[in-house]
Amino acid sequence: MAQGTLEIVIPGRPAKCSIFLGDHISRQFPVALLNEATSIAIVSDEVVARLYSGQLRQLFSKTKTTHIITIRHGERSKTLATASRIASRMSDLGLDRKSVLIALGGGVVGDLTGFVASIFKRGINYVQIPTTLLAQVDSSIGGKCGVDADWGKNQIGTFYQPICVFIDTSFLDTLPEHEVVNGLAEIVKSSIIANSSMFEKIESRTSDFFSIPELKSLIPSTVGIKSKVVETDEREANVRRILNYGHTIGHAIESSSDYSLSHGKSVVLGMMCEGWIACQSGIFDRKDFARQQSVLSKIRARYKIKTDFESRKVLRFVTLDKKNTAGIVRMSVPERIGKMDTGTDGNFTVSVSREQILQSLNWLRSGGN
Amino acid sequence: MAQGTLEIVIPGRPAKCSIFLGDHISRQFPVALLNEATSIAIVSDEVVARLYSGQLRQLFSKTKTTHIITIRHGERSKTLATASRIASRMSDLGLDRKSVLIALGGGVVGDLTGFVASIFKRGINYVQIPTTLLAQVDSSIGGKCGVDADWGKNQIGTFYQPICVFIDTSFLDTLPEHEVVNGLAEIVKSSIIANSSMFEKIESRTSDFFSIPELKSLIPSTVGIKSKVVETDEREANVRRILNYGHTIGHAIESSSDYSLSHGKSVVLGMMCEGWIACQSGIFDRKDFARQQSVLSKIRARYKIKTDFESRKVLRFVTLDKKNTAGIVRMSVPERIGKMDTGTDGNFTVSVSREQILQSLNWLRSGGN
Repeated sequence: MAQGTLEIVIPGRPAKCSIFLGDHISRQFPVALLNEATSIAIVSDEVVARLYSGQLRQLFSKTKTTHIITIRHGERSKTLATASRIASRMSDLGLDRKSVLIALGGGVVGDLTGFVASIFKRGINYVQIPTTLLAQVDSSIGGKCGVDADWGKNQIGTFYQPICVFIDTSFLDTLPEHEVVNGLAEIVKSSIIANSSMFEKIESRTSDFFSIPELKSLIPSTVGIKSKVVETDEREANVRRILNYGHTIGHAIESSSDYSLSHGKSVVLGMMCEGWIACQSGIFDRKDFARQQSVLSKIRARYKIKTDFESRKVLRFVTLDKKNTAGIVRMSVPERIGKMDTGTDGNFTVSVSREQILQSLNWLRSGGN
Repeated sequence: MAQGTLEIVIPGRPAKCSIFLGDHISRQFPVALLNEATSIAIVSDEVVARLYSGQLRQLFSKTKTTHIITIRHGERSKTLATASRIASRMSDLGLDRKSVLIALGGGVVGDLTGFVASIFKRGINYVQIPTTLLAQVDSSIGGKCGVDADWGKNQIGTFYQPICVFIDTSFLDTLPEHEVVNGLAEIVKSSIIANSSMFEKIESRTSDFFSIPELKSLIPSTVGIKSKVVETDEREANVRRILNYGHTIGHAIESSSDYSLSHGKSVVLGMMCEGWIACQSGIFDRKDFARQQSVLSKIRARYKIKTDFESRKVLRFVTLDKKNTAGIVRMSVPERIGKMDTGTDGNFTVSVSREQILQSLNWLRSGGN
């Protein structure tokens, strides 16, 4: 997609999801979408709320009663307990089935707010206004929402589409430096799984694809890829699995670090390992694997991504992955840059042994060359 | 429906829901439905588990690893905290996205298990095996699941259809006497909202429609009515609202008693009040209202249903009802026995003032004649 609008229509779902994308577009928010709402509550974390919730509230409160519900910043807020507190606050504020929640923030706020919207009085409408690069290119799109459990990340959740995703890239002008890699990893992933010319664009840059203006220019393609995949397969029965490239091992590395290693850094390492396994198995073209490694190595160097994980601990987390069934680890892997392997029976995954995973982790720990 | 099977097909939902109904049919459980399951967990309360979980486990464990997860008996288990504990236990047992939950029990177990199934790893399949009259005729059918919150009953939940509802009426042979009225209220409600000949059958009996064999004979029609309504309108956008007859005021009476008055007893009183309001408003035919009152009065006398509620307290709970929007209380009311009013704009509800509700409660408290 280019700057502008896009719609995701999922068969059998009552409402379509409209995506709006542009720079400095906050005044163009499609307030007509909220015409039917009885009231509005903006859910945000304390950091984002301080910066932006006031102006947004002003925008909405011209027509509707608009409340602000603030949660603590950070992944530790993404729990069933916080979801329960938000719902209780919504009840206190008199929100009903026709009220609309607005998720204003990054992935934590978006996942949590979507989840609350999906279970409050059996489901109300919500809007995503993503403010981080990761949320703008990935987590705000596709309706995956949920919370973390003691026993794993994102293990409690629902598929629940927002009525609107409003991506104003001007939020990124105040994005903290350490947040960039989270979105960057998903952008590079998108190009590897579905768009070779986008990958070429990334690969042709030496280092300036780390700058915010350069990253902004890659957002439309990334959003376009994700929307198209989700529209075809909302519930991850087949093709949506390709979006998990790098995430099976990536999530496990992230969990095993007790989340001290960020999501983006973990996914960069995850793609290295999963790509290596695919290459070793003769699935991922050797030359294209080398091209992937060249780009990912630049990111790894730029963000000083450490590989001091314990391989066996990572493996234990891999076996907890939501996508596993009957104890078999399955992952989506590329065939070439821009083209994922369709897998056994067209399910877009291949089964990978524990041994292969261990080997890939040890290979990465010893340098990844 | 007669004894036998029935299917609910909801547009856009991936799977259909098969309903099996009969007496002493446990050996005919359609185990083929579980062919794809990697493992099974039966969720039950301590009372039902002691009586029945062993034989069921034996039935399933011939083909699949089958676990039993037991919760405490009673409404107090229907919380987000219990849902979270069940999910954590499922993770410990190694359940994955292809595992199947079996809800074995009454409404609490069914609502809670369905809710856990809807949020565990973003949703897994589940089966309802209802063991109480209320669960067999009402709560196991239609995919409404959820938990209670501090601030209200069923305020957190999802719409999530089971793949199968297996109704073996022989469970009712051990049903505690105090449970009967819960199902009976829904049976009578079903006849009032959609089946006048069924109501005639009920009204023609003097008192023996309280016996288990007589109640069993009314189950197929009740299940048939609910299935048909849910199939047309899963998410309660219009016609499904008729199933709430008696429940707006009924739930509020139940809540205001702090659940010391049972659901069924509360719904009996709720239908009396809501029917009275509809009659006063000229919607419910006066003669048919009298016929309803005659049947409900028999039940009220038989179960010694008290009306010592505080009207203003009940009214406060009515204003919290999930179905209200913009602070307006709406309810579904009959036009005649067997035919509900289609309401304003065909939405099957009429708006009711606080004053009318208070009057109806006071009328009921002073005898309801």
